[in-house]
Amino acid sequence: MTVAEKIRTIAADARQASFAVAKLSSNVKNELLMDMAMALINNAPHIIEENRKDLAAGEKRGLSGAMLDRLMLDEARIKGMADAIREVAALPDPVGEVTGMWKRPNDLMVGKMRIPLGVIGIIYESRPNVTSDAAALCLKSGNAVVLRGGSEAIYSNVAIARFLKEELAKRDLPDAAISLIPFVEREGVTEMLKQEAFIDVIIPRGGESLIRFVVEHSKIPVIKHYKGVCHIFVDASADFEMARDIIINAKTQRPGVCNALETLLIHRDIAETFVPFIYTALTALDVELRGDEAFRQFAPEAKVATEEDWHAEYLELILSAGVVDDLDGAIDHINRYSSLHTESIITKDYANSQRFIREVNSGVVMVNASTRFSDGNQLGLGAEIGISTTKLHSFGPMGLTDLTTTKFIVYGDGQVRP
Amino acid sequence: MTVAEKIRTIAADARQASFAVAKLSSNVKNELLMDMAMALINNAPHIIEENRKDLAAGEKRGLSGAMLDRLMLDEARIKGMADAIREVAALPDPVGEVTGMWKRPNDLMVGKMRIPLGVIGIIYESRPNVTSDAAALCLKSGNAVVLRGGSEAIYSNVAIARFLKEELAKRDLPDAAISLIPFVEREGVTEMLKQEAFIDVIIPRGGESLIRFVVEHSKIPVIKHYKGVCHIFVDASADFEMARDIIINAKTQRPGVCNALETLLIHRDIAETFVPFIYTALTALDVELRGDEAFRQFAPEAKVATEEDWHAEYLELILSAGVVDDLDGAIDHINRYSSLHTESIITKDYANSQRFIREVNSGVVMVNASTRFSDGNQLGLGAEIGISTTKLHSFGPMGLTDLTTTKFIVYGDGQVRP
Repeated sequence: MTVAEKIRTIAADARQASFAVAKLSSNVKNELLMDMAMALINNAPHIIEENRKDLAAGEKRGLSGAMLDRLMLDEARIKGMADAIREVAALPDPVGEVTGMWKRPNDLMVGKMRIPLGVIGIIYESRPNVTSDAAALCLKSGNAVVLRGGSEAIYSNVAIARFLKEELAKRDLPDAAISLIPFVEREGVTEMLKQEAFIDVIIPRGGESLIRFVVEHSKIPVIKHYKGVCHIFVDASADFEMARDIIINAKTQRPGVCNALETLLIHRDIAETFVPFIYTALTALDVELRGDEAFRQFAPEAKVATEEDWHAEYLELILSAGVVDDLDGAIDHINRYSSLHTESIITKDYANSQRFIREVNSGVVMVNASTRFSDGNQLGLGAEIGISTTKLHSFGPMGLTDLTTTKFIVYGDGQVRP
Repeated sequence: MTVAEKIRTIAADARQASFAVAKLSSNVKNELLMDMAMALINNAPHIIEENRKDLAAGEKRGLSGAMLDRLMLDEARIKGMADAIREVAALPDPVGEVTGMWKRPNDLMVGKMRIPLGVIGIIYESRPNVTSDAAALCLKSGNAVVLRGGSEAIYSNVAIARFLKEELAKRDLPDAAISLIPFVEREGVTEMLKQEAFIDVIIPRGGESLIRFVVEHSKIPVIKHYKGVCHIFVDASADFEMARDIIINAKTQRPGVCNALETLLIHRDIAETFVPFIYTALTALDVELRGDEAFRQFAPEAKVATEEDWHAEYLELILSAGVVDDLDGAIDHINRYSSLHTESIITKDYANSQRFIREVNSGVVMVNASTRFSDGNQLGLGAEIGISTTKLHSFGPMGLTDLTTTKFIVYGDGQVRP
């Protein structure tokens, strides 16, 4: 079989398996997940052995220490993967939920019921835990999944998927419900992206270049986020200490992630006092500031921000900073440069907090809180399957519910249309 | 300017205008819609004059009588368009609705708020009323719209759009919020489908070939339905009279629409009596039946159904009919041939009704009701913007809410992530 034929077969089998998974009761799904968690722990030695092959190949290929660390599995990490599966088992099952029901004038009862999407395609890089995390979330939401991990983790991913599949087979369920593409040719990805007859949605997890590649080549809808250029606006009425603590947390607590702060906007009325205050606090923590002219008036040692800086997702200890005339100026700046990820206002002013919430249309909009809370777990969705910065289907951090859709259900007693 | 430049400018202006429309209060939007309805009525003579140009060109091009009738506007039809706008004004405004709010352990209040999608692109054929219908729904849901109607209705569409835009301008709102592509080059469509930076979603309204063209060429997500192959399954326990009345209604009340019945499935246990019963009733109404072998055993005069018939959306008085062993057989047939539009079971059996509702995952699933109710208005959504037979974002008939998404809103009082 060619790569194209193999991929088509995998996708078609996953579609067929999806019908069986969609019908499973919550109890059966939860028992399956608990057994899968146990299977990973029981088979940790074998998974670690396979992982060693990936590590050896990675060293040979000259992967960085950080990359190798991300790839590495040991008993503790496998226990972490098992715990994550158990957490998914503990989440409420979205499938079958009736989100509303109403009566029509002709006595038809019309409602909407949550159902699985069908088959989810996940394309991801390096970390092997994504294999079990994504499989668990897809199973719990009644979907089949086609997983395509990075070539650098192929032995680990195949081993993990094998033990998950075995639990399906033990219960006479089609193990194609958890499918992993077991070879590394790049062609596998492009062929996978053509299976619109069998795969309902693609969720890429990885860097911007992976995501752009997937969007460019996919015939299947893609739920994506390219980057997070998160803003904090310090309003004229802000409590300085609260603003400082939130800004420091948002910028420095974990600078390498998409919900870290990248641009700071400051109300002109407080610039004279707040700019030196925050400049001192941030530089003490080794944050490099790049300011506009007005910012540098009160912090002359700051570097100069160029147009590029307002678009930048630094992912390191650099922060662009500008002074705006008022709330409208802040909203205009955000509308212009936002990646639609997360923005926060620091204010004591009721009306401004309400306007910011209403008028800033990013996936997550906050008042007096750190952008670092923009995460499915932190917002209370349970485990996160991804994050969307486009508005169709899902917007913002995505949990189990985002792997479902709703159908209309109609209960009649013989109604016909006049 | 080239066509590409013109389209880009139109789309970019619509994006800019969308920020203003997103902020409008429900009151202002409703007043605008009422004024737009009045403007169409007041300017009916001019619209009719422009419509005459389309009709004259259509006759010259040899359009069929049915096509010309669909194109034709008179005072009554313009009043109908105005009434439709007023109905949209009367619908509840989805924007700003908070669909849920919860408290996190750290006292963050997290909720989801409905917001507009941004810019909606509508690509449609012949009927000029789509211009005002779609514009009204997009405006009410806080979106800007880019309309691209058929070349055969260009004069009518430009005239209608002009009077809608004038009402925006009168209130100092950017009239690009309702944009109509004012020229007929086919290139306009393909260029429009490239404006993913400015248009958030494309909704094509028209025949299957238009929709396939749009899907093939679009870089923007498309909400689509190709066709409706609706099924009715007559269970062993069905009331024969109820089944007959529903089948007749579903097949003959308006055969040319996507929610009309196309395939009838009958439980084997009642085939001997029900098949002749329904065959007589349907042929008396000039419905041609194409049956499988078991069906033709009890209705030998029925034509033979081929594999093609199970895929067919006839849109006329033809019905494919098959006998299945049981509910599982019916569900298997539907899973295999369904267009994911609408399916109905006729039954007195509680357990079978519940299984059918749960296990058939089409956009609309019914018990003891005619498939002809599968329509936004009939299901209680108010006016319908389209229908989706793919599961992402929307599934089934789409109303105002489907032109929105939700963002997360977070109210804090200084929380930082530990």
